Amino acid sequence: MISIVFIGFGNVNQHLCNALHKSTNASVIQIFNKSVKSVSSEVSNIPFTTNISEIKQADVYIIGIPDDAIAAVSERLPFRDRLVVHTSGSVAMNTLSTHNRKGVFYPLQTFSKARSVAFKVIPICIEAEHASDLLLLQHLGHILSEEVLEIPSEARAKLHLAAVFVNNFVNHLYHISEALLSEHQLDFGLLHPLIAETARKIETLTPSEAQTGPAKRNDKKTIENHLHLLEGSEYSALYQLLTNSIRDQFK
Amino acid sequence: MISIVFIGFGNVNQHLCNALHKSTNASVIQIFNKSVKSVSSEVSNIPFTTNISEIKQADVYIIGIPDDAIAAVSERLPFRDRLVVHTSGSVAMNTLSTHNRKGVFYPLQTFSKARSVAFKVIPICIEAEHASDLLLLQHLGHILSEEVLEIPSEARAKLHLAAVFVNNFVNHLYHISEALLSEHQLDFGLLHPLIAETARKIETLTPSEAQTGPAKRNDKKTIENHLHLLEGSEYSALYQLLTNSIRDQFK
Repeated sequence: MISIVFIGFGNVNQHLCNALHKSTNASVIQIFNKSVKSVSSEVSNIPFTTNISEIKQADVYIIGIPDDAIAAVSERLPFRDRLVVHTSGSVAMNTLSTHNRKGVFYPLQTFSKARSVAFKVIPICIEAEHASDLLLLQHLGHILSEEVLEIPSEARAKLHLAAVFVNNFVNHLYHISEALLSEHQLDFGLLHPLIAETARKIETLTPSEAQTGPAKRNDKKTIENHLHLLEGSEYSALYQLLTNSIRDQFK
Repeated sequence: MISIVFIGFGNVNQHLCNALHKSTNASVIQIFNKSVKSVSSEVSNIPFTTNISEIKQADVYIIGIPDDAIAAVSERLPFRDRLVVHTSGSVAMNTLSTHNRKGVFYPLQTFSKARSVAFKVIPICIEAEHASDLLLLQHLGHILSEEVLEIPSEARAKLHLAAVFVNNFVNHLYHISEALLSEHQLDFGLLHPLIAETARKIETLTPSEAQTGPAKRNDKKTIENHLHLLEGSEYSALYQLLTNSIRDQFK
């Protein structure tokens, strides 16, 4: 049975807490957050504190706070030589204070308040200074997911960057499409089947195999028509850059 | 019973042919293609010709060929005053020859040889010069799909442009991620759950609501780290432009 204290209670820690609290192999013994937070009824029986000096003893402390606060908060923890991990994709393990044993527990997924998450298939990327801590994080990861991988900070930073491309940037392209359609009072829902199929395709084809469209074919007339439609639009430069990048890939 | 001749036998027409050939409300009576094509066993009993003068009489002729050939091929068809439609998202209806009655039958989806397509949820965008032809295309569309919409050429061009963003460009971002991961021998499959969730999210949230990440938060340090990781990369400019575009959206 692994005992856990959550430090910070934003999106990621809330989802982790909900999932781990249900498990019989883990025990969430406390939530610390600098301010009072309304917690969902499923986890309302977990002791909650806003006082850093009241934090209890546990096997692992999971920090889920903004990236730029991780160093300072880990430095302020009033105990020594315990396992303290953060959940960030882009922060190096060594950013954590040397007061405690360092580790990382990064679930590679996008979390929203409004949506529950199926942890089973989500890669959990772990890292630790000590072999015994790595083992503990492996056990903890496997409580949630079938996919637990040891990934060092440098590779994790690249993974996080890649995740920004397929999540943040892809979602922004959805936003642009929605804006383009709204000019003709067309419903964004029209694109849902295409969006779903685009995502499903790369589960069986490589992105190169799945690529289609005017840029790949270097269909100058269609590209010209599109740029004409985008005249004066803030998205014209983006269209041009993405089109050139695809052309370069296939030339 | 609607009788159909396919003109050209690329990806789109092959998928349409497979789907319509199964229906009891449509009859595919011929496939014309300028060169001999190996056809799948399901449709091998449909008469096939490479001779334009042998094209049979039908209720509708569906042209599925490269955009820039549509005008010329429709001009060369050796009959008059029949319903001839093309399947292109970006070509105006009036590109078709005036020799016949014009129309458009554009299924809003990405088609690959290797993947079958569930037409039921795919929007079919139709257009016709004459009310009676529009009615026929409506019937034909509903044989395949629950979503058949009359969309004029100008709006369809915008829709096609939006489709390029959510399909071609999104797929290219998948390719970039794959390239970034390969630098650390990380498997692109790690991103599959994130990609799937990113696509699913916008079925219940707007893209604005679903947006997360360093650009939205204007997290300068993470953005700087990412640009550092991309130093010398061809994708650096794209990262910058997409990041700025998200920042502008949320500022």
